Amino acid sequence: MSKKNTNTKEKKADYQPDNEKNQNQKKAQAKGFQYKKNAKHSFKQRNGSAKKYRKPVNETPVRIAFLGGLNEVGKNMTLYEYKDEMFLVDCGLAFPDPDMLGVDLVIPDFSYVEKNADKIKGIIITHGHEDHIGGLAYLLKTVNVPVYGTKLTIGLIQGKLKEHGILSSAKLNEVAPGDVVNFNEFSVEMIHVNHSIPDAIALAIKCGAGTIIQTGDFKIDSTPIDGGMIDLSRFAQLGDEGVLALLSDSTNAERPGYTESERKVGESFDVLFRKAGKSRIIVATFASNIHRVQQIINVAASLGRKVAIMGRSLENVVNISAQLGYLNIPDNVLINADLINKYPADSLVIITTGSQGEPMSALSRMAFSDHRKVEICPNDYVIISATPIPGNEKTVGRVVNELLKLGAEVIYEKMYDVHVSGHACQEELKLIMGLVKPRYFIPVHGEQKHLRKHAMLAEGMGIPTENIFIADNGYVAEMTSSSIKSAAPVPAGRIFVDGYGVGDVGSVVLRDRKHLGQDGIIVVTASLDYETGQLIAGPEVVSRGFVYVKEAEELIEQARKIAEKSLENCYYSNISDINAIKGKLRDAVSHFVYEQTKRSPMILPIIMEV
Amino acid sequence: MSKKNTNTKEKKADYQPDNEKNQNQKKAQAKGFQYKKNAKHSFKQRNGSAKKYRKPVNETPVRIAFLGGLNEVGKNMTLYEYKDEMFLVDCGLAFPDPDMLGVDLVIPDFSYVEKNADKIKGIIITHGHEDHIGGLAYLLKTVNVPVYGTKLTIGLIQGKLKEHGILSSAKLNEVAPGDVVNFNEFSVEMIHVNHSIPDAIALAIKCGAGTIIQTGDFKIDSTPIDGGMIDLSRFAQLGDEGVLALLSDSTNAERPGYTESERKVGESFDVLFRKAGKSRIIVATFASNIHRVQQIINVAASLGRKVAIMGRSLENVVNISAQLGYLNIPDNVLINADLINKYPADSLVIITTGSQGEPMSALSRMAFSDHRKVEICPNDYVIISATPIPGNEKTVGRVVNELLKLGAEVIYEKMYDVHVSGHACQEELKLIMGLVKPRYFIPVHGEQKHLRKHAMLAEGMGIPTENIFIADNGYVAEMTSSSIKSAAPVPAGRIFVDGYGVGDVGSVVLRDRKHLGQDGIIVVTASLDYETGQLIAGPEVVSRGFVYVKEAEELIEQARKIAEKSLENCYYSNISDINAIKGKLRDAVSHFVYEQTKRSPMILPIIMEV
Repeated sequence: MSKKNTNTKEKKADYQPDNEKNQNQKKAQAKGFQYKKNAKHSFKQRNGSAKKYRKPVNETPVRIAFLGGLNEVGKNMTLYEYKDEMFLVDCGLAFPDPDMLGVDLVIPDFSYVEKNADKIKGIIITHGHEDHIGGLAYLLKTVNVPVYGTKLTIGLIQGKLKEHGILSSAKLNEVAPGDVVNFNEFSVEMIHVNHSIPDAIALAIKCGAGTIIQTGDFKIDSTPIDGGMIDLSRFAQLGDEGVLALLSDSTNAERPGYTESERKVGESFDVLFRKAGKSRIIVATFASNIHRVQQIINVAASLGRKVAIMGRSLENVVNISAQLGYLNIPDNVLINADLINKYPADSLVIITTGSQGEPMSALSRMAFSDHRKVEICPNDYVIISATPIPGNEKTVGRVVNELLKLGAEVIYEKMYDVHVSGHACQEELKLIMGLVKPRYFIPVHGEQKHLRKHAMLAEGMGIPTENIFIADNGYVAEMTSSSIKSAAPVPAGRIFVDGYGVGDVGSVVLRDRKHLGQDGIIVVTASLDYETGQLIAGPEVVSRGFVYVKEAEELIEQARKIAEKSLENCYYSNISDINAIKGKLRDAVSHFVYEQTKRSPMILPIIMEV
Repeated sequence: MSKKNTNTKEKKADYQPDNEKNQNQKKAQAKGFQYKKNAKHSFKQRNGSAKKYRKPVNETPVRIAFLGGLNEVGKNMTLYEYKDEMFLVDCGLAFPDPDMLGVDLVIPDFSYVEKNADKIKGIIITHGHEDHIGGLAYLLKTVNVPVYGTKLTIGLIQGKLKEHGILSSAKLNEVAPGDVVNFNEFSVEMIHVNHSIPDAIALAIKCGAGTIIQTGDFKIDSTPIDGGMIDLSRFAQLGDEGVLALLSDSTNAERPGYTESERKVGESFDVLFRKAGKSRIIVATFASNIHRVQQIINVAASLGRKVAIMGRSLENVVNISAQLGYLNIPDNVLINADLINKYPADSLVIITTGSQGEPMSALSRMAFSDHRKVEICPNDYVIISATPIPGNEKTVGRVVNELLKLGAEVIYEKMYDVHVSGHACQEELKLIMGLVKPRYFIPVHGEQKHLRKHAMLAEGMGIPTENIFIADNGYVAEMTSSSIKSAAPVPAGRIFVDGYGVGDVGSVVLRDRKHLGQDGIIVVTASLDYETGQLIAGPEVVSRGFVYVKEAEELIEQARKIAEKSLENCYYSNISDINAIKGKLRDAVSHFVYEQTKRSPMILPIIMEV
């Protein structure tokens, strides 16, 4: 990791350290967004209509463009605009839905950013999860803006940019909670929050139109493993000073109550590791959940067990975290994964990836007896320290079933408290709203059902319905101190990444892939005489993914005859246009095949003129 | 419905009505399986090893072959064999996993049944769900054995067989709870159970080796909507008489406690329908859940709302159930679905299919604004009266999101008690074990994790580990009054149905479909001179599902040149074997494409000799 490349220590001129923060706040306040009292009032005014506020003459609105993360889980990206200045928050990826066949990952559409490249002062990253940093390498290749993030976040970003070969050209800036980044029109303060990865931050964004708080992903953990509790008092101070808008994490808006502390999981590990007795312990968890890994290591060490790390992404994150001081590994606990067979089962804990049943992950390969180093046996005690993300229930279930068939004991789902969420539940979300007392509320990060539920919570807290803005990707919220409205939308689609290709797989290709995948293909080839149009070779009929050919030779031969007859008909009817001939061929074969099999494979006629 | 076809009233000679039941039981007992006392003893003997029992000389074992339903959810099918007699229980289908591309449904492998066709006396169906009757039409086309089922079950089977055009040749026999079907060696008594479809039965199967109870799918509902509570006292009587083995439903073995009564859902409907106020109410539920439909109709009628039924499967089941007396529809409540627009929103309830988010279902089409009759608006109050089956969470979530975007209010998942399961939870499962007191316990209907959990419950009840038999499809459990062992397995795979094709789609076709679906196909065609091997037309390169061709013309042209060069190389190297030329072509194009795109489309070379 080269210091020169990252700029982490060479802070830029417009970057303001912690101790100047208060002055900055005063300056921002002096600019004239005195809606504090009113905001409080409107907040208390349950079910009443919002009061009229003093509207400054010619007030410049702040604009928030949602480039990703709404009506979806993933690819979070937000653009802030005030006067002629813009900056971005996060640039995530989304994992493809099952109907996006062959797509590796999905990133936001950057065209609006590219169009305004000269206005964009930087991008601030709230934390190091893929849905917040995974699109960054693609963005920086187009628009190389300065990047701001906390130490671990920057560390993880460096790894990604290195893979893409663009680390040396990137302008990375390390910030810490309490720091303020000053652009010309905007100042952005970092606020410490709890989440399932260390070093996550919320942002207090100030400009002439007021203060906007974007929570990022967060939860309230009063007994976190490291880094301290979320900085609630800073949220409270900002709330007392007056907040124009709150953009808050909706992921768990459907869940009542509070999210349990990460520490709870450690207690469960302590109980379960003791229960495991003489067995080898295998724990699967998310690679980025450093505090989870820390707790596994702590409990293992306390019971005299060695720890081996397996799975590329986990090894990667553990290395970075240990280097940067986010993971505290006692001496002589970590062992090389190649040496696990030199230790007795009852002195081993293996930490591994695959808690979502991902087919290529280490745990999946162990379950399907396809792992180079670990062979599952009845003396294994497997803990899946995660709950399935919606859509993954079946793959996780399959891994559990296979592990059980090999005789292992498996702790999964809600059998014990082996997982807690990284996102705030309803009571926490309400608490943040209560502290921040925003005039306007915009639920972000979530599907429609999450955004709706979060909006309902806000209404329940007394925020007037007309002050709640449920947006969609591409929407632009335009706000002054006294109004919020939807401005003209901006481009904000999804771009598919497949191999090296970014954006070259679109709806036509996906439609064809779906058709091919469902029904297979029948290729009909023939050579025609260039001058007479007479058939001189073929037709040949070749199928893939349609029927098992050895058992359907007759069907294929019949299809060939149908094709031959169709070509003859064209010849005798003087149809010489190649496309017309192809159309006839396709119709004839397609009709025959459907009649015989009730299936509709793709029919691809190829005519060569000799 | 023709009486002649169904034989429902013309009971066969070997069919014994209710009142002869007890004599039959006494006869069976007299045959000498006096393990009652011992069975009880072993049952009480917690954690102790099983006692030795008097073993009769040359005792003939009863064999149970599991042809489906183990380590999977669906295609339940069990074969019983004693001496030279066999009969079957259930013949279900399974819905394809997402990786079974293009497969419509999955049925059991019938080869063992076909091989023993002359020994098979009949098939008894426990209830009318697809996973118990869906394979029957395919079975009867091969082995036309007599079918036994309760009235509603037979009614639903008739519908299926009619679709397949084999109703007139089928031998359908209607039975009722309490009835006994007597084959030569076996007698089978029907026992009333509660489930999410009316007229479900458990079976008490008696032969010289003892009594086996197969629960079918069941729950204990002490306040069912119709048909009375499960016949617990009959289970108790049989338990007191002595039961050799219990095969019990494992679906909910992971869930603690009791399954709520179906009546609970009706109470929720009453509350929610009132809350809906002036809105139109739309309730999505499983087509076969007649009691659910009954409750919706009852609550609608009590509030003066009309009811319209939408969705083909639902209309079908409602018609059959109403005809057979399982659904009691008050006069003037049901209206034609075409006339819904003639009624004000607040006097309507629409019952529809699609509670699992199935893409072609009525509710999905409504959500995606693609339904002919129903346009969702903010005045709609939608209740999804089901919980997502594992794997369907995301599709259900998508439907909810789309309905919300259209402004509808949506009640889903665990927001209210709008759904209860049809399967017994842990306390009910234990209760049945406690009543039946089996010597041997075989958990059925479920994945490995369900079977395991169910086995653990049995161990907790004091059934010795060695008396619990966790089987897999194809396993054969061979039991005498004093022993259980695994006999040589029988064929029990899965057969894919795709269109008219039964079994012609196998692993090769699926592998190709997966490849085509993920990466698309590149077809390379060329015509060579038959004698000289010289290229005389082409090569042409055509792709589908690979890249959007208009933006990748250059790539395709480069691939064409690579192909051309490869063919020239073959010509000049005197390679004339067509397969060798194809191999060279495939390698060259494949390598080039991967280098350029990091993708691996299927490469299909077609060479024609002119």
